[in-house]
Amino acid sequence: MNLEDRYFSPDSAAIARDLYAQIKDLPLICPHGHVEPRLLADPDFSFGTPVDLLIIPDHYIFRMLYSQGITLEELGVPRRDGGEVERDHRKIWQKVCDHWHLFRGTPTGIWLRDELRHVFGIDAKLNSVNAQSIYDALTEKLRHPDFRPRRLFERFNIEVLATTDAATDTLEHHQAIRESGWLGRVIPTFRPDAVVNIDMDGWGESIHSLSAVSGIEVIDYASYIAALEQRRAFFKSMGATATDHAAQTAYTEHLNAHEAEAIFQRGMKGEANADDARRFTGHMLIEMAGMSSEDGLVMQLHIGSYRDHNPLIYQRFGRNMGADIPIVSEFTRNLKPLLDFFGNDRTLTIVLFNLDESTYSRELAPLAGHYPCLRLGPPWWFFDSLNGMRRFFDSVVETAGIYNTAGFNDDTRAYPSIPSRHDVWRRASADWLAGLVVRQIVDEEDAHEMAYALVYQLAKETYKLGDQETELEFG
Amino acid sequence: MNLEDRYFSPDSAAIARDLYAQIKDLPLICPHGHVEPRLLADPDFSFGTPVDLLIIPDHYIFRMLYSQGITLEELGVPRRDGGEVERDHRKIWQKVCDHWHLFRGTPTGIWLRDELRHVFGIDAKLNSVNAQSIYDALTEKLRHPDFRPRRLFERFNIEVLATTDAATDTLEHHQAIRESGWLGRVIPTFRPDAVVNIDMDGWGESIHSLSAVSGIEVIDYASYIAALEQRRAFFKSMGATATDHAAQTAYTEHLNAHEAEAIFQRGMKGEANADDARRFTGHMLIEMAGMSSEDGLVMQLHIGSYRDHNPLIYQRFGRNMGADIPIVSEFTRNLKPLLDFFGNDRTLTIVLFNLDESTYSRELAPLAGHYPCLRLGPPWWFFDSLNGMRRFFDSVVETAGIYNTAGFNDDTRAYPSIPSRHDVWRRASADWLAGLVVRQIVDEEDAHEMAYALVYQLAKETYKLGDQETELEFG
Amino acid sequence: MNLEDRYFSPDSAAIARDLYAQIKDLPLICPHGHVEPRLLADPDFSFGTPVDLLIIPDHYIFRMLYSQGITLEELGVPRRDGGEVERDHRKIWQKVCDHWHLFRGTPTGIWLRDELRHVFGIDAKLNSVNAQSIYDALTEKLRHPDFRPRRLFERFNIEVLATTDAATDTLEHHQAIRESGWLGRVIPTFRPDAVVNIDMDGWGESIHSLSAVSGIEVIDYASYIAALEQRRAFFKSMGATATDHAAQTAYTEHLNAHEAEAIFQRGMKGEANADDARRFTGHMLIEMAGMSSEDGLVMQLHIGSYRDHNPLIYQRFGRNMGADIPIVSEFTRNLKPLLDFFGNDRTLTIVLFNLDESTYSRELAPLAGHYPCLRLGPPWWFFDSLNGMRRFFDSVVETAGIYNTAGFNDDTRAYPSIPSRHDVWRRASADWLAGLVVRQIVDEEDAHEMAYALVYQLAKETYKLGDQETELEFG
Repeated sequence: MNLEDRYFSPDSAAIARDLYAQIKDLPLICPHGHVEPRLLADPDFSFGTPVDLLIIPDHYIFRMLYSQGITLEELGVPRRDGGEVERDHRKIWQKVCDHWHLFRGTPTGIWLRDELRHVFGIDAKLNSVNAQSIYDALTEKLRHPDFRPRRLFERFNIEVLATTDAATDTLEHHQAIRESGWLGRVIPTFRPDAVVNIDMDGWGESIHSLSAVSGIEVIDYASYIAALEQRRAFFKSMGATATDHAAQTAYTEHLNAHEAEAIFQRGMKGEANADDARRFTGHMLIEMAGMSSEDGLVMQLHIGSYRDHNPLIYQRFGRNMGADIPIVSEFTRNLKPLLDFFGNDRTLTIVLFNLDESTYSRELAPLAGHYPCLRLGPPWWFFDSLNGMRRFFDSVVETAGIYNTAGFNDDTRAYPSIPSRHDVWRRASADWLAGLVVRQIVDEEDAHEMAYALVYQLAKETYKLGDQETELEFG
Repeated sequence: MNLEDRYFSPDSAAIARDLYAQIKDLPLICPHGHVEPRLLADPDFSFGTPVDLLIIPDHYIFRMLYSQGITLEELGVPRRDGGEVERDHRKIWQKVCDHWHLFRGTPTGIWLRDELRHVFGIDAKLNSVNAQSIYDALTEKLRHPDFRPRRLFERFNIEVLATTDAATDTLEHHQAIRESGWLGRVIPTFRPDAVVNIDMDGWGESIHSLSAVSGIEVIDYASYIAALEQRRAFFKSMGATATDHAAQTAYTEHLNAHEAEAIFQRGMKGEANADDARRFTGHMLIEMAGMSSEDGLVMQLHIGSYRDHNPLIYQRFGRNMGADIPIVSEFTRNLKPLLDFFGNDRTLTIVLFNLDESTYSRELAPLAGHYPCLRLGPPWWFFDSLNGMRRFFDSVVETAGIYNTAGFNDDTRAYPSIPSRHDVWRRASADWLAGLVVRQIVDEEDAHEMAYALVYQLAKETYKLGDQETELEFG
Repeated sequence: MNLEDRYFSPDSAAIARDLYAQIKDLPLICPHGHVEPRLLADPDFSFGTPVDLLIIPDHYIFRMLYSQGITLEELGVPRRDGGEVERDHRKIWQKVCDHWHLFRGTPTGIWLRDELRHVFGIDAKLNSVNAQSIYDALTEKLRHPDFRPRRLFERFNIEVLATTDAATDTLEHHQAIRESGWLGRVIPTFRPDAVVNIDMDGWGESIHSLSAVSGIEVIDYASYIAALEQRRAFFKSMGATATDHAAQTAYTEHLNAHEAEAIFQRGMKGEANADDARRFTGHMLIEMAGMSSEDGLVMQLHIGSYRDHNPLIYQRFGRNMGADIPIVSEFTRNLKPLLDFFGNDRTLTIVLFNLDESTYSRELAPLAGHYPCLRLGPPWWFFDSLNGMRRFFDSVVETAGIYNTAGFNDDTRAYPSIPSRHDVWRRASADWLAGLVVRQIVDEEDAHEMAYALVYQLAKETYKLGDQETELEFG
């Protein structure tokens, strides 16, 4: 296989190759993801074994194996109760390789293939026979200083990497990175879900933490808002340019001061019900949009995941274990109360992410193609894939154009997969644009500018990641 | 760029070219749209400046610019309160051209490119540098008698053009066209929304108008129905072959005489609530289907738009300002009460339009592939685009066939874009059919007949626009 | 036309041809369908006229003709009241051929073309002129012993054929097949809808039949369950490996013993309401999953059809008359109660079928890509088509992989169309895989294994149709 042309449609591969050539080496803009900042705070951080790096933290991989009858214990995923799990990482690796055929045709299969090849220099296809020798090769590489996270950051040519951090986080790792003198740009993102969703396990504790870190005693709605504003200011001082909010639905509702206070107090007493929680979250989205309008932090909304769908997995292993399942989403009606307040605000940027593709052409593109505050995030999660990207482009661009999208983000906790993920997007963009050129929908000159926007400029501009405050120019 | 093959897939372009060659010059059938009849009533009507013609009335264009932070005032869109808006049309045109990159990959970009080229003879791509010279060239053209609406009608080879007119319209412009001796066929369409949707602003006034124009004093449900019947007969006498109904949902419900009367009376007193309005609209759809079954007017249903979603825009600029957003639609259950009455009526034709593409394969194609009265309208509004058409063909035809579709209509208020819009459909049809041929799903002989049906015959037959009453033959 | 490459995309046809060559002659695994076992019980069964065979029992064909104004009476479909219908089969055949253009671009058109060619040796395209000569040719063939069902079974190379049988069926035809010494493998499937859905016409009678055939007097919930268990054991003894359940929605709910009993008793008295029926069906799905976990029968769930949507057609002609229309489906929330019980059960297999394609990528693939018990059935009914298959592959595989799918089944009552239907799937699989190869998403080695899995191995394994109990190995 000549993998240089991978993912390009044959009927426009020559044009795709040309478009790709001009964007493939651009620096990576990573405005949203889940890399742990401690990796980069410690200059000598080691990833551990290949299984520590590639399998145990990656729910994309172990969910597929689980679906075919392999237990998470067999894969070394730690139990909450500290119960026995497989500790022989060679055995785990062998099991993964024995079942690698399951990943045929999946983005996970592609990412790992590309990652092994381009990050680790391993060209072989994983299988039962070569499992141990590849394990050896990976182990060897991971021991080398070139595979410390900071060295990879530089090699990956990351221009900026945003992490995602709880509102109550002290950002000590970010502090350490700043103080270390290392020049990699790593910035936090303000994610207040744990202090906003009053029906989440441990909300009360989170509020205590919020008081502690903010220095504002949170006793009522007013002090709660004050504490949140304090945290936002702190995050901003640490380089944050964005916030992030996850909600099952896009429901928004503005509560009057009395209602907000009453629900907040019920929450503090542990007496809030599901409807309280839903309304409070919907209200806080509007509040947060207002704060963003003030402080300029870009607001990200991740909508549509039913978290922890499988109670057995949640009880035994906790969150983010591959058991989150999408649900139907609705934006036109749900987001209206928020948009009635801030939809026409040209200084506000809200980036929408969703897991229900039927909303792309029906709601998201029409909304983003009208409201100044809205941009569409790239295909999220299950749709961060070649077909997902293709459907996104085909469903969204005709109505919203590309300039109402937010470019790409990798949204990953799998650090060494970052270049592969960006490369898939870059190739998918080049391929899609080549299809427009060959059908004469746009000319090559436009396609080149669109490619640059899609893979670099739009993310940088949307998330205000320019070096100066200068607004970027298109066209 | 050799634009002659534009929009064709490379792998079947030769076949597409051949199919297209045989349909490209067929007359245009325009059974649904929003061209104002006064354009054609006045033989000397002038379009004004290029901005009057191309920008100010076109919400496809200004909604995109608005989404990127340009105000409608800057674009010269008139305010309801008569407030200040930009009057320098050269300045507006420059602003549009400065931002023309926003339309890359959009149908609007394609339509305007094709329109400039084929209607105005301008081949250049709009940009900041050539904006003023293109403005000059357009101004020059628009002064010439060849660019009067009637001359364009002839040059466009329009066989018939249907306008869309309020039930209370006197059709004076249609009368003037008839009396003028000009031979262009321009017919009205009966659109009773303003007198049917009792929660619409100004319903009471519309009922007064209905009394006035019909000569029937509308005081109760019976006189209301009588007045509507009178209007339908009048429209039909003026050449109308169809009605048009817009509703947020496809909800239908048959009210008994007592309920209908009660809701109507609450409406007359200004006491109808939202549920009354919903039920009354749902009932009137059934009533109107019944009237169509009697008088033979084809019934169009446009379902799924949340109109005037942005209150600021509505208050300041009014309706049809690019702030209508689609919502989820449902037909299987909602349309059942109507179909229980008239679904098996072979003399009735109902044409369905929708903005929720997930209904195409799930509901619309299965319904149209069974019920004799149903036909599917072409991709509507945001989906009147190359991808929209492709998805429509791919989702609908396998279950409903092409002969349960209604061919194409341009649905536009942008008069000079009519040929471009039909040409996009003709090319999209040829391209899709060529894909069937090259995959040997149909042979070339069938593909030629299908092309003719899709771009000419089906619209003509569905809307009963034949010169004689002769039924058209297929196959 | 060189039909050998039919349905292949030109840009990867060479690879598709190569993949197809290796799978085209594999035996047919038919784990789900509606062939009547009496065809195969009687060694001398004759299909009757071409119209008896191809038109009257095929709602795909007569629904399309009905949608264009041809009555079912004209097509010879028997009325429930014994009323007059067309009996001249030559006249019916002529009418079908006169309207054959309606099937252009539809799977029905493709199946019949392929069937005429490959089963009957007729290459001509149906039309008004050749209708009678083709009728003659078909009649001639059907008289020949080679066209007895058993001979065709062997010629079609069917490895196993599962029928679908009421829970109360005595399976006499299956018994007869077994006793006849003929070696064709024909097995029943346990379909208990008529005894589970308490709002179905004739539920009470079905319960009487259940008592009669099981020998257990069904008087309460406990005896009802016992009788169902008896029937399952009987079906299993007759070779069944699966059950099948149709429900309008995927709603599941576990009732406690008291509630279940109460609803059952209301059903027995004819007093159950719609909500009772909905909850009881939802409960029984969980019960049946539990039984499957015990007895190993694979559980099929067909969700999302609004049956008998057209009351006139139902009253006049009964069920399965082309008037079933899909509705919106939801799985993430609806299936959770069942999955909370059995989702992690690695010995249970549930195969999901659906008519709402928006659930593919949003819910079905994420669910199947996590829960060990779930597999996705192939595109069902309206989606058993080239585009339906393509959308299924493109929407499902990236998240669930192919190994969480159940391969193909033809789901047909049109016996001689079985090879055509499998061939369309085989070609669609080869074409899709060739697209992956040419884009270098998988290599040719993997593609060959995937092709084998998709067209043969996955169906055989999912439905436990191996000759021995040996578990099949992949990869």
